[in-house]
Amino acid sequence: MTESTVDGVRYAADGPVATLTFDKPGRSNAMDVPMQARYGSALRQADADPAVRAVVVTGAGKAFCPGADLGLLDDISAAPPASGGGHENWRDVLAAAAVGVPVVAAVNGGCAGLGFVIACSADVRFAAAGAKFTTAFARRGLIAEYGIAKLLPELVGQGRARDLLLSGRTFTAEQAFAYGLVQEVVPPGELGLRAHAYATELATYSAPRSMAVMKAQFSREASLPLPEAAREATALMIESFARPELAEGLASWNDRRPPRFPPHPAP
Amino acid sequence: MTESTVDGVRYAADGPVATLTFDKPGRSNAMDVPMQARYGSALRQADADPAVRAVVVTGAGKAFCPGADLGLLDDISAAPPASGGGHENWRDVLAAAAVGVPVVAAVNGGCAGLGFVIACSADVRFAAAGAKFTTAFARRGLIAEYGIAKLLPELVGQGRARDLLLSGRTFTAEQAFAYGLVQEVVPPGELGLRAHAYATELATYSAPRSMAVMKAQFSREASLPLPEAAREATALMIESFARPELAEGLASWNDRRPPRFPPHPAP
Amino acid sequence: MTESTVDGVRYAADGPVATLTFDKPGRSNAMDVPMQARYGSALRQADADPAVRAVVVTGAGKAFCPGADLGLLDDISAAPPASGGGHENWRDVLAAAAVGVPVVAAVNGGCAGLGFVIACSADVRFAAAGAKFTTAFARRGLIAEYGIAKLLPELVGQGRARDLLLSGRTFTAEQAFAYGLVQEVVPPGELGLRAHAYATELATYSAPRSMAVMKAQFSREASLPLPEAAREATALMIESFARPELAEGLASWNDRRPPRFPPHPAP
Repeated sequence: MTESTVDGVRYAADGPVATLTFDKPGRSNAMDVPMQARYGSALRQADADPAVRAVVVTGAGKAFCPGADLGLLDDISAAPPASGGGHENWRDVLAAAAVGVPVVAAVNGGCAGLGFVIACSADVRFAAAGAKFTTAFARRGLIAEYGIAKLLPELVGQGRARDLLLSGRTFTAEQAFAYGLVQEVVPPGELGLRAHAYATELATYSAPRSMAVMKAQFSREASLPLPEAAREATALMIESFARPELAEGLASWNDRRPPRFPPHPAP
Repeated sequence: MTESTVDGVRYAADGPVATLTFDKPGRSNAMDVPMQARYGSALRQADADPAVRAVVVTGAGKAFCPGADLGLLDDISAAPPASGGGHENWRDVLAAAAVGVPVVAAVNGGCAGLGFVIACSADVRFAAAGAKFTTAFARRGLIAEYGIAKLLPELVGQGRARDLLLSGRTFTAEQAFAYGLVQEVVPPGELGLRAHAYATELATYSAPRSMAVMKAQFSREASLPLPEAAREATALMIESFARPELAEGLASWNDRRPPRFPPHPAP
Repeated sequence: MTESTVDGVRYAADGPVATLTFDKPGRSNAMDVPMQARYGSALRQADADPAVRAVVVTGAGKAFCPGADLGLLDDISAAPPASGGGHENWRDVLAAAAVGVPVVAAVNGGCAGLGFVIACSADVRFAAAGAKFTTAFARRGLIAEYGIAKLLPELVGQGRARDLLLSGRTFTAEQAFAYGLVQEVVPPGELGLRAHAYATELATYSAPRSMAVMKAQFSREASLPLPEAAREATALMIESFARPELAEGLASWNDRRPPRFPPHPAP
């Protein structure tokens, strides 16, 4: 296992699963700009590594990520940036939605603001029992940042999304599960193991190329009429027929053994 | 508190929360055209009043709103209007989706047809235990009116939306909660208080401008690809950095006191 | 009751409800190309028959439909088709979404791959307790086929849809109900009766034309901004005012009797 921490993000590769951990002791993993950038680059690094087939994102200590460092926001409020700057930060914040490798968020504790957006941009969410969530933005005088006005309704429906974004109220992991926001609630001591086991299942049984193609399909096909989505999917299906993944998928199924899929293609 | 009833809609302003009440005794709050128009204008009046920061919509007596007055529909069926008329009624019916102020529906009882559309166009829905809902349209030979074919799937998913619209069957507040259509079910005697408390929470802790911007974001960003939604949100975020709302949001957070946000801007 | 079985699809018309049954003994109802084509043509046949007002799709024996016949996939993998062929199969697979008649899936057992897409393309889904579901594609090296990357998020939200498509894991009818994928779980021995009763309710109380117009509205209005959706719905509403369906819907309501709606118009 290799491990390194840069700008508040720990990167650990353990076989086919890479784990990114927000780790800023004393700041409860609050994000500054270098930490945002490092999160994005660490995800792209995992995506480019053929050995990595799934990624877990989590937090060290008691918090997942409480959002932007309030000291940073104090500075911004006192001296707002010229509108020319910071326009591309969203590429890092939403990196999980852009990479081909599947991303599992393991929300271990406090998840707010920017941290909430990051959790919502992952493909699947697990949460520790008792973890607290809040969108927070409306209570700070901010807006629905980084596309969360689109992401959240797609996860929980418009009614609950408006409740959570307009009110900025705090809610629990158990409520998040009832809303459909997190896919599983796990006792806190077991969260890391459970998320890792799920990621390992993806890495073991699902073809990396299939997952990368599907992630692109989720992005593209949602806004197409069904016949056009079906036409695109048909073209992708016919491409997949000629690939080694299908042959291996069928052979492993016929032989009742785990598949040995090739690594996912470089992005 | 000021209060007035015009064309079957009672308008009461009580501090930062305005309450609109469908009130047509003897007709169970069924809607005719002047009542639709008054509902829209009352919502726009609340939106334009800087003292109002949240709106509750509810019904007097046993019903919320059972839809268009059937006597009116009898007349329409006997003498269908020329296709040139009535094209703009939707602006009143869907006023809750167009105003910047947050709208909470408190469904106290029978909610059908046009009344169902109005409830679905609110941002958040509370319902009294035992309240009955139905889309009704298919059972009257009508179609999915006023955009409900778009609104309902965004609230409850395509499966449940098709069930409810194709069948026109009656369902309860408890089922509506299980479907994700209403965000909370409350004992009938407590509904008004609960909805008012929730609206007061929005009015107290959330910046009116943040809520107005978010409502516009929900409408616009849903149909954009995520990168474009994120780009728009980034521009709005940078605008928000220079506003007094952020400074007050941070100061009140740091001081552990309720914020004193400025009123929301005139529409 | 008339009944015939062609290419693995049984067609039975019983009053206003037609039942299509996947019936390929010895292959667990796995689909080959003629069976796909027959499914599509049988649905279009039901849609064109003025006596048919609702359709149930189910499977004979223990399975609903486990997807494409793996022997067929073995052949395809060994000799991939030229990319010119098979481009229009989606029209048969997604026929339920294109016809005006409402389609109820009664998932009696194993539902995977192509069978899963067919179930998701129906308007409403019932399932037998204990029935097993899986998307399967990622575990065979395939992609999200036939628009399921669009259909599934619209049914269960993006979080659960990504879980189910990326993992290809197996889940039960009870989980499918909790996810919002199926609208009702029924004891296995009662599934056929329950689905038929629901279809009969649609056929009895809902105007066939209303249902056909609504199905077109679901497809069109989802991708429109709300004001445009409302404008289109208003035009359709005004058309409906002049039709015999409204007069009959009001008369039957006033008389407290079941309506006698005319058959739905030929597609």
